[in-house]
Amino acid sequence: MNKLEDIVSLCKRRGFIFPGSDIYGGMAGTWDFGPLGVTLKKNLMDAWWKFFVEDRNDMYGIDAAILMNPRTWVASGHTATFADPLVECKECKSRFRADKIADGISESVTTEEFLATHTKCPVCGKENWGPIRKFNMMFSTHVGAVLPDDDQELMSKNIAYLRPETAQGIFTNYKNVVDTFYPNLPFGLAQQGKAFRNEISPRDFILRDRECSQMEIEYFVAPDTWEDNFEKMRTLQHDFLTNICGLHAENIHELEVPAEDRAHYSKRTIDFMFDYPNGKEELMGLAYRTDFDLANIARESGKSMEYRDKITGETFIPHVIEPSIGVERLFLAVLATAYTEEDIDGEKRTILKLPENLSPYKFCVSPLLKNKPELVEKAHEVYDKLKNKYTFVTWDDSGNIGKRYRKQDEIGTPKCVVVDFDTLSDDTVTVRDRDTTKQIRVKISDL
Amino acid sequence: MNKLEDIVSLCKRRGFIFPGSDIYGGMAGTWDFGPLGVTLKKNLMDAWWKFFVEDRNDMYGIDAAILMNPRTWVASGHTATFADPLVECKECKSRFRADKIADGISESVTTEEFLATHTKCPVCGKENWGPIRKFNMMFSTHVGAVLPDDDQELMSKNIAYLRPETAQGIFTNYKNVVDTFYPNLPFGLAQQGKAFRNEISPRDFILRDRECSQMEIEYFVAPDTWEDNFEKMRTLQHDFLTNICGLHAENIHELEVPAEDRAHYSKRTIDFMFDYPNGKEELMGLAYRTDFDLANIARESGKSMEYRDKITGETFIPHVIEPSIGVERLFLAVLATAYTEEDIDGEKRTILKLPENLSPYKFCVSPLLKNKPELVEKAHEVYDKLKNKYTFVTWDDSGNIGKRYRKQDEIGTPKCVVVDFDTLSDDTVTVRDRDTTKQIRVKISDL
Repeated sequence: MNKLEDIVSLCKRRGFIFPGSDIYGGMAGTWDFGPLGVTLKKNLMDAWWKFFVEDRNDMYGIDAAILMNPRTWVASGHTATFADPLVECKECKSRFRADKIADGISESVTTEEFLATHTKCPVCGKENWGPIRKFNMMFSTHVGAVLPDDDQELMSKNIAYLRPETAQGIFTNYKNVVDTFYPNLPFGLAQQGKAFRNEISPRDFILRDRECSQMEIEYFVAPDTWEDNFEKMRTLQHDFLTNICGLHAENIHELEVPAEDRAHYSKRTIDFMFDYPNGKEELMGLAYRTDFDLANIARESGKSMEYRDKITGETFIPHVIEPSIGVERLFLAVLATAYTEEDIDGEKRTILKLPENLSPYKFCVSPLLKNKPELVEKAHEVYDKLKNKYTFVTWDDSGNIGKRYRKQDEIGTPKCVVVDFDTLSDDTVTVRDRDTTKQIRVKISDL
Repeated sequence: MNKLEDIVSLCKRRGFIFPGSDIYGGMAGTWDFGPLGVTLKKNLMDAWWKFFVEDRNDMYGIDAAILMNPRTWVASGHTATFADPLVECKECKSRFRADKIADGISESVTTEEFLATHTKCPVCGKENWGPIRKFNMMFSTHVGAVLPDDDQELMSKNIAYLRPETAQGIFTNYKNVVDTFYPNLPFGLAQQGKAFRNEISPRDFILRDRECSQMEIEYFVAPDTWEDNFEKMRTLQHDFLTNICGLHAENIHELEVPAEDRAHYSKRTIDFMFDYPNGKEELMGLAYRTDFDLANIARESGKSMEYRDKITGETFIPHVIEPSIGVERLFLAVLATAYTEEDIDGEKRTILKLPENLSPYKFCVSPLLKNKPELVEKAHEVYDKLKNKYTFVTWDDSGNIGKRYRKQDEIGTPKCVVVDFDTLSDDTVTVRDRDTTKQIRVKISDL
């Protein structure tokens, strides 16, 4: 097994992440977070919200609906261009993303270019391809009283999409916030929420899923200040990733996206690449989006998106710096950083060295022996005391103490508190450290 | 204006809730939470999570994907029965929910029964109706490489639905949690997340929307203990609604749903009705669902859902108590409870008397006069000090002090801290209470 497989296996075995709809044979590209995964995910999202919104004075939260007026996606360009090149094998009818089965071609591959690669069908081995077709990755649905046998016109009048990004839920609320809060520039609108992409081939665990959670900020700035604000935002991202999430700086690589690879509206984009177990992959992006989005919304809606400077009276459309991160990508980066295997006298010890602020449990309390009622009772006392104080405390009296340590190591619990016979006489407990395995005696009142 | 309209207006004016996709003329049945709404909603959801999950020892969190294998909805009965009666006017082609435009008929109305009511079309006034048709309220989409011109067979093979409830995301993970955590009965699985219903006529602000957030617990119990656990869960709900959310007990009415109105699988259901501004409406539900869901999943998946008692070795399918609450319904109940108008010397004062744990800001800091740099500077000092300590602190130096008080009253800020000239000499500030409007002098160091 490689490291990614080890992590996937640990996630399932310990209740971090299960394959979506597993009981029915699954639903490709979806994942369900189990009890420990929910907590780790929530800790990450809350840490981001605190760092980027609550602790600052220039940020405002937004929580927009997933179903948006379809004109949103006309204005943003998604209706026209959010598409992958789809190709169908005429022999076995299998469909593929063309640029994923042939080497050396890009997303904008033409039929001629694809045929020239002489690719064989990965399913049936034949080489008999239909034309390249654009496959829009937005999931579509119909809103309102539309029935399956209605005609195409009525159907398309009522079409709606699952948002493919949270960003547009922010941009469409820009004017609402300006009109109610009169913020000074620069200011940011932040949102956490689900986004959906109908990937032709979901893969790489939670890295390329069909349903993900995004955390995005649109930071509105005066046009001539963008470079300075871009730099500040760049530093903040590194602070968050390393100091709050515990990622190692040496695993984060800034990729300055060259002009020809950038979205046409962006004047500068940095992809933050991370050394995932299977190689470098994008962890997050930082883009200077100019006034592209607000200008599009102004055009599509006919409403002014201009900001009036409170002192000079000057009006202009603000420019935007956008840091955008996928929760699942961050989740996996945190797990990959924390996942450690040690060899102890020929036996493998698996440890999740999660930062304390992120680990699902801070303490595990257990009695040394579970068949000694006096130990169990005392341990419950200690558990209640800690739980009252810290909330994130777990109880474990399964198996023997060695097995419990191994389990708590695997789920990243920093400290195990064990009640033994000495506890009964001197009110001290053993506190065992996850990373060093060192054990010390501590007074219960000092915990 | 009635009270609901007042609340809707305040929500928009002060940045709690905006109509969804407003900039493009809206998207019926969707709402966007603005900066203050995000915080209030997050406070409510976090308070629920802490009360029902984190502070307990018998609860496990789940966060399942919104897109689930469609067999989920066959097993749960949604594919067959989650439908409203739709009727179309043959004259103007308008469509309606039959039981909403005619009196005295139920959701299971037949065409004959509907025609016998002699209802006129609310749009064109004619009486020329087509047959009653079942309109399934699940939003459908297609997952994977399906193109708009594919045939029906391929389309329907790839159909998927936006989950109409979060409950099934829990039930389908029951076995995952049992197999990884070996919980003792009774135990609960809790989930917060979005659910979608294609209401034919969304209405009543956020009460009947197409996209909502649910908070649900499936509490698994030994079959012969259901009554006792039902009672415990019932008490807990009241505790949460009154002590944590600040609702008044006299506005919550338990409606014991009679057998003929209950879902067929439920042996007991209590609807918690709330006195909303426009009348009594369901706030939440508490249902005893027997083993209906797990038994259905066992049948549909072919996998055993049996639980083995660790002591007796007895095996059985656990029964389920389900408390289910919609975040938006709770949000509106909290706002309706907090919304107060007072007449002060002929002038109206609007106050949101939110409980302190829920209000978006705990403190507002401002200088008495904004054109006195020494006051502004000192006020910033106080603001920084408080913000460091409490996070949820806002700054306001707009308009005059009276206007600021009115604004902070409207958004529910419990305390306004004002820095004036005395502050400069004796380091005390004025602390003004939202509910009483009383002002006291407090040492900055005692804040």
